[in-house]
Amino acid sequence: MNVVLAVDIGGTNLRQAIVEPSGAIIDEARCTLDLAHKTQAHGSSAVDLMLDAIEQSLTPAITRHHPQAVGMGFPGFFDDRTRRLVASPNLPYVHDLPLADMLAERLGLPVFMQNDALCAALGEHRFGAGQDVTNLLHLTLGTGIGGGLILHGRPWSGEFGMAAEFGHLRIRHGHEARPCGCGKRGCVEAYASATAIQAIYQERTGRNLDAQAVHARALTGDEDALNVWREAGFSLGMAIAQCIILLDIHCATLSGGLTGAWYMLEPAMREALESELIPPQRNHVSIMLSRLGERAGILGAAVLATKGLTDS
Amino acid sequence: MNVVLAVDIGGTNLRQAIVEPSGAIIDEARCTLDLAHKTQAHGSSAVDLMLDAIEQSLTPAITRHHPQAVGMGFPGFFDDRTRRLVASPNLPYVHDLPLADMLAERLGLPVFMQNDALCAALGEHRFGAGQDVTNLLHLTLGTGIGGGLILHGRPWSGEFGMAAEFGHLRIRHGHEARPCGCGKRGCVEAYASATAIQAIYQERTGRNLDAQAVHARALTGDEDALNVWREAGFSLGMAIAQCIILLDIHCATLSGGLTGAWYMLEPAMREALESELIPPQRNHVSIMLSRLGERAGILGAAVLATKGLTDS
Repeated sequence: MNVVLAVDIGGTNLRQAIVEPSGAIIDEARCTLDLAHKTQAHGSSAVDLMLDAIEQSLTPAITRHHPQAVGMGFPGFFDDRTRRLVASPNLPYVHDLPLADMLAERLGLPVFMQNDALCAALGEHRFGAGQDVTNLLHLTLGTGIGGGLILHGRPWSGEFGMAAEFGHLRIRHGHEARPCGCGKRGCVEAYASATAIQAIYQERTGRNLDAQAVHARALTGDEDALNVWREAGFSLGMAIAQCIILLDIHCATLSGGLTGAWYMLEPAMREALESELIPPQRNHVSIMLSRLGERAGILGAAVLATKGLTDS
Repeated sequence: MNVVLAVDIGGTNLRQAIVEPSGAIIDEARCTLDLAHKTQAHGSSAVDLMLDAIEQSLTPAITRHHPQAVGMGFPGFFDDRTRRLVASPNLPYVHDLPLADMLAERLGLPVFMQNDALCAALGEHRFGAGQDVTNLLHLTLGTGIGGGLILHGRPWSGEFGMAAEFGHLRIRHGHEARPCGCGKRGCVEAYASATAIQAIYQERTGRNLDAQAVHARALTGDEDALNVWREAGFSLGMAIAQCIILLDIHCATLSGGLTGAWYMLEPAMREALESELIPPQRNHVSIMLSRLGERAGILGAAVLATKGLTDS
């Protein structure tokens, strides 16, 4: 059967699936893969360790299912023209590498790679909540905030593969703006990521709870917790509005762990949109919860592999 | 000869030119056309008055040069699918109209219309400073701030013709953010348009001088005037950075009256870019002064007409 191996690599997990052209998943697995940890080694050896770990994780499924190609979402920037990984903000040891080709050589299969959030956008656009639209902004809300853009039905990765760095759109200014991991201040990631929710809740209450626990507190009616989620939703809406003012696209979808708190995020997100858009752009923007949830990335990786095979 | 009539309509002026396919202008004229003033009439009569005025302005050149088509930049939003003008923020009496077709009927010629700032982007991309790039953000700095986007070599007008509303990207938040004509606060137009420069200088010095006069003051070494221009440049850089974070494009060009103060705007604009972009996006962004100046719009209108004839 014409199946592909779809892989979604995050900072701490590798998720893989054997996917049919229809999008049906016929086998699925997940393992931990602590890529950040590999930074303890240096130079090419760190890259080798990473490739070893990925190869080892994927070999069983390849042996069992004989996929025709591998599609992979990876947390980094890819230059479409050179097929090279340009940089990976969280993995400084991978930098300007022909990562797809290196992995293809090890696996004996064609490998097609793209930014993880852009893969999620591809998946959501093909099989999920964005499947009827031409243009889509897809956001992944987790430890950080990723973004992927589909324009005219095609992935928009930008000139150096760095498009849709949604988490680093700025929504606050001045000295009181929160610092972000990227070194700037006021990025939406500093207000609406899991990391931010944990930090803001701790600043206000003194309690150090992760985003999931802050969500649980909100469910019990804890006003501080509710406000943190509402403010995160408002911040997301402000940044989405900037994208719409610039591109005049009308559909955004959201996936990732934080969307478990969707009903707290959504009203504030819509409120921000209505106040931030110019009047003629209001009232026709759809912001939707992902239909694929955590599988958006892996299904996008499958689209990438299938498309890569067709194009080559 | 295969010439077209290119028209650039602003709030107070109509500029027209007979243009060869090479971009050579063989006849050129300019007249005042106070469209905003037409709002004193109501309903369809205001539209008729506007169409009368446009027709009257264009007839002599049509009679003399027999152009094959008319291309026109107009301050409004156009829906490419329906060829209708959706809205014009400064001309509330034109709303959901087949403006190009109405004018074509009067002139007996095919008419192709697009947003004025998008026309300027088309012109700059085809004949000006952006002619070697695939993707371009073009800004028009005048009474307001307009924007036009070229993506993959083609104009990006958005789903409802409202893309690149650059002037309304937000660069300040909170109650101290300056109010904008659109009803929001903190828009870049409230910091870096001719209107804003006049207003900010007046607030700080008590002197009511237009942007050109504030420029003249800056040339004499007036520190208040110099600061107003520097801050305008910084504000523009902040907003351009948001566009690059989202789209990862690497060329922006600027035209319009305020670019006379380019050497005051530019250093601050670059400084803002470097501080606002995420580190891997820095150092390879070109911000350039328009090579076409005030003719960017009219040459873009000529491109629009020539392309319209080819496509139809």
